Amino acid sequence: MPDVTVVRRLRFNAAHRVHNPALSPEENARLFGKCNNPNWHGHNYTLEVHVTGPVDPVTGYVVDLGQLRDLVERLVVNEADHRNFNVDVPFMAGINPTSENIVVAMWRVLAPAIQPGRLSRLRLWETENNYVEYEGR
Amino acid sequence: MPDVTVVRRLRFNAAHRVHNPALSPEENARLFGKCNNPNWHGHNYTLEVHVTGPVDPVTGYVVDLGQLRDLVERLVVNEADHRNFNVDVPFMAGINPTSENIVVAMWRVLAPAIQPGRLSRLRLWETENNYVEYEGR
Amino acid sequence: MPDVTVVRRLRFNAAHRVHNPALSPEENARLFGKCNNPNWHGHNYTLEVHVTGPVDPVTGYVVDLGQLRDLVERLVVNEADHRNFNVDVPFMAGINPTSENIVVAMWRVLAPAIQPGRLSRLRLWETENNYVEYEGR
Amino acid sequence: MPDVTVVRRLRFNAAHRVHNPALSPEENARLFGKCNNPNWHGHNYTLEVHVTGPVDPVTGYVVDLGQLRDLVERLVVNEADHRNFNVDVPFMAGINPTSENIVVAMWRVLAPAIQPGRLSRLRLWETENNYVEYEGR
Amino acid sequence: MPDVTVVRRLRFNAAHRVHNPALSPEENARLFGKCNNPNWHGHNYTLEVHVTGPVDPVTGYVVDLGQLRDLVERLVVNEADHRNFNVDVPFMAGINPTSENIVVAMWRVLAPAIQPGRLSRLRLWETENNYVEYEGR
Amino acid sequence: MPDVTVVRRLRFNAAHRVHNPALSPEENARLFGKCNNPNWHGHNYTLEVHVTGPVDPVTGYVVDLGQLRDLVERLVVNEADHRNFNVDVPFMAGINPTSENIVVAMWRVLAPAIQPGRLSRLRLWETENNYVEYEGR
Repeated sequence: MPDVTVVRRLRFNAAHRVHNPALSPEENARLFGKCNNPNWHGHNYTLEVHVTGPVDPVTGYVVDLGQLRDLVERLVVNEADHRNFNVDVPFMAGINPTSENIVVAMWRVLAPAIQPGRLSRLRLWETENNYVEYEGR
Repeated sequence: MPDVTVVRRLRFNAAHRVHNPALSPEENARLFGKCNNPNWHGHNYTLEVHVTGPVDPVTGYVVDLGQLRDLVERLVVNEADHRNFNVDVPFMAGINPTSENIVVAMWRVLAPAIQPGRLSRLRLWETENNYVEYEGR
Repeated sequence: MPDVTVVRRLRFNAAHRVHNPALSPEENARLFGKCNNPNWHGHNYTLEVHVTGPVDPVTGYVVDLGQLRDLVERLVVNEADHRNFNVDVPFMAGINPTSENIVVAMWRVLAPAIQPGRLSRLRLWETENNYVEYEGR
Repeated sequence: MPDVTVVRRLRFNAAHRVHNPALSPEENARLFGKCNNPNWHGHNYTLEVHVTGPVDPVTGYVVDLGQLRDLVERLVVNEADHRNFNVDVPFMAGINPTSENIVVAMWRVLAPAIQPGRLSRLRLWETENNYVEYEGR
Repeated sequence: MPDVTVVRRLRFNAAHRVHNPALSPEENARLFGKCNNPNWHGHNYTLEVHVTGPVDPVTGYVVDLGQLRDLVERLVVNEADHRNFNVDVPFMAGINPTSENIVVAMWRVLAPAIQPGRLSRLRLWETENNYVEYEGR
Repeated sequence: MPDVTVVRRLRFNAAHRVHNPALSPEENARLFGKCNNPNWHGHNYTLEVHVTGPVDPVTGYVVDLGQLRDLVERLVVNEADHRNFNVDVPFMAGINPTSENIVVAMWRVLAPAIQPGRLSRLRLWETENNYVEYEGR
């Protein structure tokens, strides 16, 4: 069977602050500038989940997109939506919430749970002008 | 001279919490749901500034868009960008930061300052699926 | 209180065929071209609902957008989503499903039901390059 | 019959230079900055044509969008596409090609030619962050 | 010569129904839910064609994009546009029209026909929130 | 450390003409059609810069996006913005400004300058319907 990648976009809104508590306030301000604002700021994030695998000859699907959406909402989107990445989100506990660190943490939650097919890429937009990609390596 | 409307979009990222301090926590939770999360959430806001007036026969402009952008950045965008609408933004002091209240507050700051032409509409997107419009009435 | 317009976008996917049963097949083909294909075609429609009214001083809202979304989904979006405008949608019974006719029919369903605020405009995209607007007149 | 507005977007790519030949080079540079670059620059323009009128009870259309597109392409889009607004476009002869002046010139060409319905608004995007609107007044 | 990938997007509107005729109506309804609606639904599809190859030193092109567009329109887009994937489209005869199956079928038509360069990826959007990718493996 | 790709989009507006001076005017017209218009045309270009590398454990960044943006603006965007690719842009001197040739020339300027991380892909949109990708091979 041919290997196809199916992609589902999900959206959520969250607050965060780029901050490394192991550094001084001055060093945080120097490294992270306005992204370190102590009263937070926030984004409309878009998460793109890529799942690759053979097309099932009975359904014509790699994976049922409705079931994939429900799984991703339950495991990562609902945990972060209308919350604060530094304070409210268990899978980010103790992690500086840069886009790079968020996408790796989401991978670790999602990769073992997704099937059929395998998680092949996560893409996370922080704004319409910057995003990150992770392929699990 | 014909009356033309020129429009400039600007973007900023901010945290907020929909919250009326005159109400009890229970009433806030009932009215505002997840938008009332005590640790905030946030958005990539887009502000659209509409200025209407006659076309200047020397420049062919209603208003110089570079000067308009600088003015709007100075008066409202830089005040809110990478900040918290409930805590950090002087023109929102004491105001519940719904999109409706933000757009009216921005109008009050911008309308007296914009010229040539007159501010004819502000449009503020909170997400790609909801926005507000205000025409000063 | 200032009068603000709040806008909510909703999406649905439907099949249709532009066809006037009072005309001959030849006349339908001549007037509507490929949009008259007897086996249907379809679109990802986007509906934009504009509600105008005073800002409530307690909530800071013109209307609760979550309640507005639920109402519009129940009255028009769920009736049309993943269905056929010519065959499956009660509020379009006997009406040629051009975008013009769809937007007027949706207005007649929604206008009496929306409050607080008043329905001030419906905008319906059929493709990213064409849409219609109706203001109830 | 209800009055509906139908809208068609068309796209074209053109070079231009904001320049008033009645002014000195220094004055042009001061007023128009990098938009006055003598070797031109260019844009992917999007033109949005709004036509308002009663819905025809036979067709369900205000105006046939295919015929509207052909008319607008013939009268203004094909005149400007892959051309230079300062040099190549007859309806802009002698006019400084700011967006304001372009949209007024296009109105004067299109308004007498469009029917059924009447041209009610032209919207012209120069970039995704700035556009102009003209309603013929 | 460097190997560059050039990409062209094309759009079409089609009706379909996710349905496997080898299964019972109940099994189809269980597997495919509202996508199995017997009266069809539809989408604005976007197809993205990726062609990879060396840059021709005379033209500076991998492939002439105008010729590529004409070829893709003739072979797949015009076959599907304003039609029904289950009933009207020869290259989908007997195939359940999921996005996965459509993109593989389009690859089989396009890959042998595209040159210079080689078809390296097809991307097909069914809605703005879900799409599939196929690279011919 | 995991390897993540971070992506930054930048925009600029430029004029160009697809033209090979080694060929006759007739041959240029035949090969390049309206893209060969002697008085130029232009585009709103979008450049997407992909940088891949390990996530720094102190900052949580692959590369500081603000520093990346400043570097790309200085080296390529400001050289091309509001200019003419055939006449004004040093890194394109003597090169036919097709998208393929522009993206390769930008790679040669940017790849040696970007660090930490390595330039892994450049994507350049000429219009919303066509773009090119280059990965340095």
